[in-house]
Amino acid sequence: MDRLAAQMRFVTEAGLLKGVTRQTMLSGLGRRENSAEHSWHLAVMALALAAHAPDGADLLRVIQMVLIHDLVEIDAGDLFLYSSPELQAAQAAAERDAADRIFALLPPDQAARLRALWDEFNERVTPDARFARALDRLQPMLENLAAGGGTWLEHGVTADQVLARVELIRDGSPVLGALATELVRGAVESGLLSPAGD
Amino acid sequence: MDRLAAQMRFVTEAGLLKGVTRQTMLSGLGRRENSAEHSWHLAVMALALAAHAPDGADLLRVIQMVLIHDLVEIDAGDLFLYSSPELQAAQAAAERDAADRIFALLPPDQAARLRALWDEFNERVTPDARFARALDRLQPMLENLAAGGGTWLEHGVTADQVLARVELIRDGSPVLGALATELVRGAVESGLLSPAGD
Repeated sequence: MDRLAAQMRFVTEAGLLKGVTRQTMLSGLGRRENSAEHSWHLAVMALALAAHAPDGADLLRVIQMVLIHDLVEIDAGDLFLYSSPELQAAQAAAERDAADRIFALLPPDQAARLRALWDEFNERVTPDARFARALDRLQPMLENLAAGGGTWLEHGVTADQVLARVELIRDGSPVLGALATELVRGAVESGLLSPAGD
Repeated sequence: MDRLAAQMRFVTEAGLLKGVTRQTMLSGLGRRENSAEHSWHLAVMALALAAHAPDGADLLRVIQMVLIHDLVEIDAGDLFLYSSPELQAAQAAAERDAADRIFALLPPDQAARLRALWDEFNERVTPDARFARALDRLQPMLENLAAGGGTWLEHGVTADQVLARVELIRDGSPVLGALATELVRGAVESGLLSPAGD
């Protein structure tokens, strides 16, 4: 198969991400977010918030990571952030299998490059990955706030659970971590989040 | 207002693009595409198909263009590609007003930079803009083919109308232009497109 045919096969397959639904409720639309529009929102955030990335971060690499980070959900589906450790381990295995299949639709050199970016995103060691992961953690908080509590209220998530996850935002961007902490504080004050678990 | 507050205002406003519906039907999902997931698909296409861009194209600039090209639809809505010239002129004016408002949510230096990218996309002169516009023209063709005719059948669009618009794809990428011509030929053969208007 020639390179263009392989590239088009990948592009067509990627389109299926529009059908993968996340937990996040979209305020005003009365429906849950899908992983394609979520990934777009992260890329726009990367553009707008690039100044708050760690030193040495490369905007093109960050954007590529957030664009492709959820493609594995075409096979593995989306798992709610606050699921049990057992479910999260099973999900991680399913996502690796999906990455093996989906990136391999591309010509081998492109497949290897995007698969390496996906692995880097998941390992969260490099400045690019730490910033990309921070955006991925911050975005659903914004949607929950816009939706007047959203999945926090729906699933009884508490402020201490959210704050534990804000650490990952702080690691990718101290400025965005501080912002997220303020958002949690405000959400507790407005009753959108209970302060602690029972 | 500090820079971060302005950036977050833009990020929040951008999220509204998830609620702007396009004509394109998504095969298998039984719903129309929204402009946020459409923009994501274009960015993934830019990644996968970058080798077919004109000499001198810059992938980061192309991706930024496709990520933001439809933000104006938050105010102006989406117009079907085959609308009348009068409707298209009114739409262009509404989109300029929307660009004036939406990019200005950002700090002034970022607002000017993204507004210039948006203008460049619309002017379609630079290699980056020509390639970005080619992707924007090609993607709905892929969805129409996947949906067994989609908006082509729904609106009685004919092959000569589609082929006239394939010229813009060829200008941004001869390889993708040739591919699009082949896709139209195949669509006529399978009865998804009538060959010419009455």
